[in-house]
Amino acid sequence: MRVLRVQYNNHTFYASLHGDELMCLNKALGLNQPIPLREVAVVPPVMPTKIVCSAINYRSHAQEMQKNVPDEPVIFLKPPSSIIGTGMPIILPAMSNRVDHEAELAVVMGKACRNLEPDEVAEHIFGYACANDVTARDLQKKDGQYGRAKGFDSFCPIGPWIETQVPDPRNLAIAARVNGNLIQQGNTRDMLFPPFELISHISKVMTLQPGDVVLTGTPEGVGPLRHGDEVRVEIEGVGILINRVVAEKAGESEKETPMQ
Amino acid sequence: MRVLRVQYNNHTFYASLHGDELMCLNKALGLNQPIPLREVAVVPPVMPTKIVCSAINYRSHAQEMQKNVPDEPVIFLKPPSSIIGTGMPIILPAMSNRVDHEAELAVVMGKACRNLEPDEVAEHIFGYACANDVTARDLQKKDGQYGRAKGFDSFCPIGPWIETQVPDPRNLAIAARVNGNLIQQGNTRDMLFPPFELISHISKVMTLQPGDVVLTGTPEGVGPLRHGDEVRVEIEGVGILINRVVAEKAGESEKETPMQ
Repeated sequence: MRVLRVQYNNHTFYASLHGDELMCLNKALGLNQPIPLREVAVVPPVMPTKIVCSAINYRSHAQEMQKNVPDEPVIFLKPPSSIIGTGMPIILPAMSNRVDHEAELAVVMGKACRNLEPDEVAEHIFGYACANDVTARDLQKKDGQYGRAKGFDSFCPIGPWIETQVPDPRNLAIAARVNGNLIQQGNTRDMLFPPFELISHISKVMTLQPGDVVLTGTPEGVGPLRHGDEVRVEIEGVGILINRVVAEKAGESEKETPMQ
Repeated sequence: MRVLRVQYNNHTFYASLHGDELMCLNKALGLNQPIPLREVAVVPPVMPTKIVCSAINYRSHAQEMQKNVPDEPVIFLKPPSSIIGTGMPIILPAMSNRVDHEAELAVVMGKACRNLEPDEVAEHIFGYACANDVTARDLQKKDGQYGRAKGFDSFCPIGPWIETQVPDPRNLAIAARVNGNLIQQGNTRDMLFPPFELISHISKVMTLQPGDVVLTGTPEGVGPLRHGDEVRVEIEGVGILINRVVAEKAGESEKETPMQ
């Protein structure tokens, strides 16, 4: 099942996608008829309490970043304020000169859990999505810690939906295209710590809540994003996440929170 | 005003503290009479969408950690799942051999905001609290990124309340005591980036939401916590945060989320 979160008739709700029609999953709203996809606004499919990310999880990306391959996962966090959905713009911040895409498989948790063994993880997962761990590469190098470089508003595109049926997340082709050109290409089978092992590790550190998101790292081939680009993250059997790239303009910054 | 979050008669609500009595701040509950403090359970005073922390913000702590003094703030995130309130135990994880206290001034945001200048920050702050940025020092060094070392459940004690009247957060004595012994002692005037400058910097990266928490870094004197210790973070004009320290016992780990 493909699960989207949408806005329609002043309601925001989760819905399942069937061809180009949606079925509302919130029965309390009484929307029992199919809704044409074109009549809704698609918003980000997740509202997690945290986004836990894997720093180096493909040997090929470790090599291109000249980093050692770790003997256990290295994790960091992105803020929920960085989430955008498919079709929403990635904003290039004025304070960075180099912003890269990083195509990643996102896992959405379905149940609260901690201290899971790898063979207990699958039953706690709700589904999978495409994600882009957008990174200000210059600030990542400068700061050391990734809070700023990976934490800007709009730096965590996730979508286009949550796919609940993924037979084997350990064998999925994953790619990033910029303006149609294939830039990043890999397969989740090349992860150093496959999703269940990674999530087991994380769950031994922190309690995971329903809706929490785990980003599983990016393969080699990360590259820069420029104003006007269109970047796609494609994952086999999951979907295609599409975002335009827009440069922040001096003086155009807003003080108030944008509508999400 | 001192603002606590408490559980009482099957309700959880914010309340203001007056001596040893509370006034419920949620008018919808109809609790118009003073409630004796001894009749409630105090829970963590904050439920943020994110906790943004300053990596090195006192010159003296940079020296003891043998780190360079940065020319702008370095930020990282702690997960909301790490929050506990005063009186709740800090759990020493079995996978670390060295867990330290770090006494910090916490700032609780009151309004959604981004792109603030330092002189615009004060009006967006709700109040201040004591925090302990508990850190598994060995894992911090091993991982490089702080997601694990500072992200364990119980590693972010905050409390005992939110103090809304702090005339000048740039001149507060701050200390940590372990079993009554003064271990850490400093003053917020020695911050490299005072609270308003730090929060301005963060707000230029990410939108801050009401209730979001900013930890402002720790002065020198961090030290280890051991099973059975009682650690106090004391901040002048803010309060005293008290937590016991308990070692995680092998085999006692729970799969389900603890009640918070």
